[in-house]
Amino acid sequence: MFDRVDHVGIAVRNLDAAIGFYEKTFGVSLAHRERVDEQGVEEAMFRVGESWIQLLQPLGPDTPVGKFIDKRGEGVHHVGYGVPDLRKVLDHLKEEGVPLIDAEPRRGSRGSQVAFVHPKGVGGVLVELVQE
Amino acid sequence: MFDRVDHVGIAVRNLDAAIGFYEKTFGVSLAHRERVDEQGVEEAMFRVGESWIQLLQPLGPDTPVGKFIDKRGEGVHHVGYGVPDLRKVLDHLKEEGVPLIDAEPRRGSRGSQVAFVHPKGVGGVLVELVQE
Repeated sequence: MFDRVDHVGIAVRNLDAAIGFYEKTFGVSLAHRERVDEQGVEEAMFRVGESWIQLLQPLGPDTPVGKFIDKRGEGVHHVGYGVPDLRKVLDHLKEEGVPLIDAEPRRGSRGSQVAFVHPKGVGGVLVELVQE
Repeated sequence: MFDRVDHVGIAVRNLDAAIGFYEKTFGVSLAHRERVDEQGVEEAMFRVGESWIQLLQPLGPDTPVGKFIDKRGEGVHHVGYGVPDLRKVLDHLKEEGVPLIDAEPRRGSRGSQVAFVHPKGVGGVLVELVQE
């Protein structure tokens, strides 16, 4: 059902500073930067093997990532798993009674289709399903 | 410096229940299960592409993962990045002044060499470096 860890989404306060840290300290190269108003973030993506490190700076304190940082501080915000057929996975999760944030696929960054699964159904892990 | 997301380490209260959930709901197959006394956990590994999902049940409340769950609840505990040369990466991080939990490589699960980087140096993310 999952074919890869698509990305690890990490909440940061200052995207420019975090990009500089990841480049200098971890030697990864910025591949993509995008403001995603629907999700209230500016994001930066670094390629690592078949996955991405995704840094997320909230566009304001009342956004989901802004509230996350206010409550828990910076850190891992969610895990994205790549799936070949997002609708099929969502149908399966509905049958299993797993609580979904997105019952239907919606547009993600880089032209992908995405849906979030509620962390209360996944042992505290906010899961994003990503179909390229 | 990083060649893959080696694993996402997830703290769970009940390993058997969590394994059942991941198998039934996410359709991933258990590949490996091991008690790692040095780290105070019993762990279960599921292959996803070139990465692993690693579920971690603490062996007691005074272990690092036990304290994590007590403080923050279940959820993502750390991110493991695969590196080709762990000593070289540790030397670079020391030069950069990044605080390390493990200044030298130590034995991880599956015969790997690992070292943890302190989350206060990585924007709240506990990072494990893994050399197979």
